[in-house]
Amino acid sequence: MGDGSPLPRRRRTHTGEQRGTSLAHLQPAKTTPPRIVLVHSPSAADGPVSSAAVPRRADVVVVGGGVIGLSTAWRAAQAGMAVVVADPEPARGASWVAAGMLAPVTELHYGEEALLEANLAAARRWDAFASELAAAATPVGYRRCGTLLVAADDGDRAWARELFEFERTLGLEVEWLTGRQARLMEPALAPGVRAALWAPGDHQVDNRLLLGALLVASRAAGVVVVPESVQAVDVTAGSVSGVRLSSGTGIEAPAAVLAAGCRSGLVEGLPESVLPAVRPVKGQILRLRPRAGGPALGRSVRAVVEGSSVYLVPREDGSLVVGATVEEQGFDTTVTAGAVYELLRDARTVVPGVSELALDEAVAGLRPGSPDNGPVVGAHDAVSGLVVATGH
Amino acid sequence: MGDGSPLPRRRRTHTGEQRGTSLAHLQPAKTTPPRIVLVHSPSAADGPVSSAAVPRRADVVVVGGGVIGLSTAWRAAQAGMAVVVADPEPARGASWVAAGMLAPVTELHYGEEALLEANLAAARRWDAFASELAAAATPVGYRRCGTLLVAADDGDRAWARELFEFERTLGLEVEWLTGRQARLMEPALAPGVRAALWAPGDHQVDNRLLLGALLVASRAAGVVVVPESVQAVDVTAGSVSGVRLSSGTGIEAPAAVLAAGCRSGLVEGLPESVLPAVRPVKGQILRLRPRAGGPALGRSVRAVVEGSSVYLVPREDGSLVVGATVEEQGFDTTVTAGAVYELLRDARTVVPGVSELALDEAVAGLRPGSPDNGPVVGAHDAVSGLVVATGH
Repeated sequence: MGDGSPLPRRRRTHTGEQRGTSLAHLQPAKTTPPRIVLVHSPSAADGPVSSAAVPRRADVVVVGGGVIGLSTAWRAAQAGMAVVVADPEPARGASWVAAGMLAPVTELHYGEEALLEANLAAARRWDAFASELAAAATPVGYRRCGTLLVAADDGDRAWARELFEFERTLGLEVEWLTGRQARLMEPALAPGVRAALWAPGDHQVDNRLLLGALLVASRAAGVVVVPESVQAVDVTAGSVSGVRLSSGTGIEAPAAVLAAGCRSGLVEGLPESVLPAVRPVKGQILRLRPRAGGPALGRSVRAVVEGSSVYLVPREDGSLVVGATVEEQGFDTTVTAGAVYELLRDARTVVPGVSELALDEAVAGLRPGSPDNGPVVGAHDAVSGLVVATGH
Repeated sequence: MGDGSPLPRRRRTHTGEQRGTSLAHLQPAKTTPPRIVLVHSPSAADGPVSSAAVPRRADVVVVGGGVIGLSTAWRAAQAGMAVVVADPEPARGASWVAAGMLAPVTELHYGEEALLEANLAAARRWDAFASELAAAATPVGYRRCGTLLVAADDGDRAWARELFEFERTLGLEVEWLTGRQARLMEPALAPGVRAALWAPGDHQVDNRLLLGALLVASRAAGVVVVPESVQAVDVTAGSVSGVRLSSGTGIEAPAAVLAAGCRSGLVEGLPESVLPAVRPVKGQILRLRPRAGGPALGRSVRAVVEGSSVYLVPREDGSLVVGATVEEQGFDTTVTAGAVYELLRDARTVVPGVSELALDEAVAGLRPGSPDNGPVVGAHDAVSGLVVATGH
């Protein structure tokens, strides 16, 4: 995600927003009956530009066209640079498989106070960022809805209460609610919900609208989006001299931004020492569609259910994003029966009416996990012109 | 399904095979990561013939191109008739959303002994039917695998034992197994499984292969398949005189076969008294794909889990069809979160390794339910030339 996004999490009890590699788009509604079926990504041939249009040179090549890559490219183009974004499937990737939670408070982990500060600072910038992007392109579904962290049973309540006390000592804006108070805010919550932590500052963005807006804004600012993967970054005499695409085409450039998510460490041509230590952290999410009689949530709900975490993020159109698993499975994006089962089980526990919603989509993505859960961002001394931006 | 198919069931504890209206096809594997997403049926424009090829006249028009309609058409063409099958989405419909169980014994309901006899007689004809069809067209995945009816807890065991005793009095070929004996047959069964009823004569067919084979065989025999729905059957002086397609095109014919599944009662032009009393009975099923480490089943497993029924039907390629809900929801084919949850929950209870399988597809279909659960088949005195064949 962009600046204010939460960080990927490795622990099941603290799932962050989802990032992944699945790239297909939602099919438009038709009159024939629907089903859920495995589909695959649009091919590179469907991409926004043909290979014939690949520029020979640029001021900077951004490797990866997710939220981070496109945001970087947009800003670079606004600063007057000639920018190329290379991604086999632009505006998809990890950023597509996400819930868009911008929730530093309800995602806080013990021992990550420094990261919290960075996340809070980023979250504060989201309002302006969303407005600027909407004005430059299209709305991004930024909702100042807060987040309710719900505890399902007594053990979950104890865990949430500890987090609440800890957050109070940090001066964070949080409020403790009884189960009844939580249900007054969200009547769709199960009667059994024990308590909740209310974080009024933890908001959300519609990650798919965001990707679309970034693509429009980037292009409008002059960014050329090339639907190809980068095979290698070329280094000459210690400086970036360009990139080579998977097709063999070369682009000359004095600078490159590594923003390829969990694949950022796989680019060839660079010394081992500068490659970011990111790994794929699999997350599976569901998208549910509203139906008559189905529950409506007014705000994001994060829940702890017998120690497991699940979140339900309502979009403006009434649909619900339910996430997410946290799995160390390597580069595997299979949607598994077990993950879908567990997500539905936990979601139903806190919002029983979820059963009545239509299941529109299940998808797995790969977050770029970093050793300390923090983003890996910055220029490298070892290779002049190389900037890393991943692990968000 | 064809002759020997089980009947649709209204009770959750006795789900029959699935029939429905969803028609999209499985996407071929590609290298890009998959996701599960709502897709829709291929449009009529993708159908096997264009409207320009609609014949002006035929000996018989079959309304509906599912297993029943295509089987009927194939036989009629073999008998020398000029046959047209009209269906907006041929070889799909209810027949596409099915598990293909040919299981009269494990689907027996008390009080339906007459139906049992018909089902057994039909099942006995499947071997020859599958062979003939495979020779004429393509294999249909007919597997003489038997069916294991598994009881999950003590209450389920008591229910299954009663059914077993009843079936013994009817002289059916059934065997009682302890949980241990059942697990020797199917090692993937959960350790907690209490007991099982083994029906060695309850087999399966791959309903999707069957549809493909019927389409090939029908065409090879001269059947013309028109990808349009029939708006009305024309009756002149008490006899069928033709049909009118939704496009307005007319086909003259002295005979029509109503084989439109749960929509068979909606065709215009016929007197109320001859329309079959079929209604849509919604069923949702899942298709799971094998993965390394996932469980393999050698035969169809039907289970009763705390009084609910679920079945797991293994295909030759290792994939598993899991079904099915039985819902009175009218013409609704929404895949719901609750149904997917319950199917996965019950399937996991009897075969825990199901969690490791990939979830490839979830789909809802509409069985043609009849008042007595029996097929509605035969010629009508009131309208000469009209044959009804639905409710299977």
